[in-house]
Amino acid sequence: MPGKLILCRHGQSDWNLKNLFTGWTDVDLTDLGRSEAKAAGVAVRELDFTIDVAYTSLLKRAIRTLWLMLDEMDRMWIPVIRDWRLNERHYGALQGLNKAETAAKYGDEQVHVWRRSYATPPPPLEADDDRHPAHDPRYAGIEGLPATESLATTLERVKPFWNECIVPELKAGRNVLIAAHGNSLRALVKMLDNVSEEEITGFNIPTGIPILYELDDDLQPLSRRFLGDPDAVAAAAAAVANQAKG
Amino acid sequence: MPGKLILCRHGQSDWNLKNLFTGWTDVDLTDLGRSEAKAAGVAVRELDFTIDVAYTSLLKRAIRTLWLMLDEMDRMWIPVIRDWRLNERHYGALQGLNKAETAAKYGDEQVHVWRRSYATPPPPLEADDDRHPAHDPRYAGIEGLPATESLATTLERVKPFWNECIVPELKAGRNVLIAAHGNSLRALVKMLDNVSEEEITGFNIPTGIPILYELDDDLQPLSRRFLGDPDAVAAAAAAVANQAKG
Repeated sequence: MPGKLILCRHGQSDWNLKNLFTGWTDVDLTDLGRSEAKAAGVAVRELDFTIDVAYTSLLKRAIRTLWLMLDEMDRMWIPVIRDWRLNERHYGALQGLNKAETAAKYGDEQVHVWRRSYATPPPPLEADDDRHPAHDPRYAGIEGLPATESLATTLERVKPFWNECIVPELKAGRNVLIAAHGNSLRALVKMLDNVSEEEITGFNIPTGIPILYELDDDLQPLSRRFLGDPDAVAAAAAAVANQAKG
Repeated sequence: MPGKLILCRHGQSDWNLKNLFTGWTDVDLTDLGRSEAKAAGVAVRELDFTIDVAYTSLLKRAIRTLWLMLDEMDRMWIPVIRDWRLNERHYGALQGLNKAETAAKYGDEQVHVWRRSYATPPPPLEADDDRHPAHDPRYAGIEGLPATESLATTLERVKPFWNECIVPELKAGRNVLIAAHGNSLRALVKMLDNVSEEEITGFNIPTGIPILYELDDDLQPLSRRFLGDPDAVAAAAAAVANQAKG
């Protein structure tokens, strides 16, 4: 039997509140985001199995979400692997810009394309832009750092991470927790549930609601369900159902 | 040039307050212990170099110390490796007993031997004792788990960890932070500074005061100094000097 898989998207961050495009900017969780993470940890703690190994990105809003979850789960001692390939989609030259101002400048339609199309990335950062990941020591030595990403190119770096890191753990029967971001998790859901390019761009991963996958021997999903407070779970499920209709 | 090495002992834990023998019992930091960890993180943040990789034990008082330090250092993204060989000395059948009651039962002299002799371990835990690490999932698959330890046997498991994990990092020029416990750090200090068996048992690692080693190409210490608030550092240095005299 393969291990079980839990995905969890970090909760509210400082820049969610400020309505700025975030991407790889390393902003922290708000107090609400921390509460969401703790609640996610409680939901995982109440399962009838335990997590053996955890993965997260190189961004503190995901790392802190994982820390708060592990603390609630009383599993601070399990191995934790940080990998840039779980980072949020890189938002290119839009990173740090105000969403409303950007819409005013480029038009709602263009911004909608950048946010929601599968394969169109925002304008890239210049190589000498301070925001370019080549200038950040955490990415030293990494080949092929993006200056912008679409969901399609995000999936291109999530997929080898999945195959190299997660598949062997699951096949060895270990239960895996991944604490990450809206788009890196979207890429995983697309792969796991074989979601179309069109449908995945409208699929919003709920924040702070762990998603539990049970998998067969070929790591195909047998079931997918949200964990936690019944009202929050019902709201998350309804939101996903509405997206699928819309 | 090899990397630099920083050792940091966790601060006050719940059982320090309660005057219980702790060993491998997984007790948490008190509020004071958390403050000590944050101050340690600030002291490391103010250095003119940054930490590349961090190591800690499987016990939450050390892991939380590291988390709080990394948070203050704004280096939550660096790799963190947890290893049981950095755990506190196993205190055998004394774990969970009150220090004063134990002294009343066995005599001050016997307790002093258990606490301060280099090679005499406390009475071992029975294999079927709930406190035995064989019953704790975090140690699953580990060969040769101790049922009690002296400082001598603690050093015997710290030494291969040092050689396998830390030496290659330092030789590659990476700066290493180790957040751990009084006796696993004592073992490291004994090895690094070539301290005698007699002297090391009286050498108290200060809590929450990072110790910075600069090393030569053979990883022999060029210098060792305490980091942080000048008054706290002076107090730590004076305490160590008095121990050396006593």
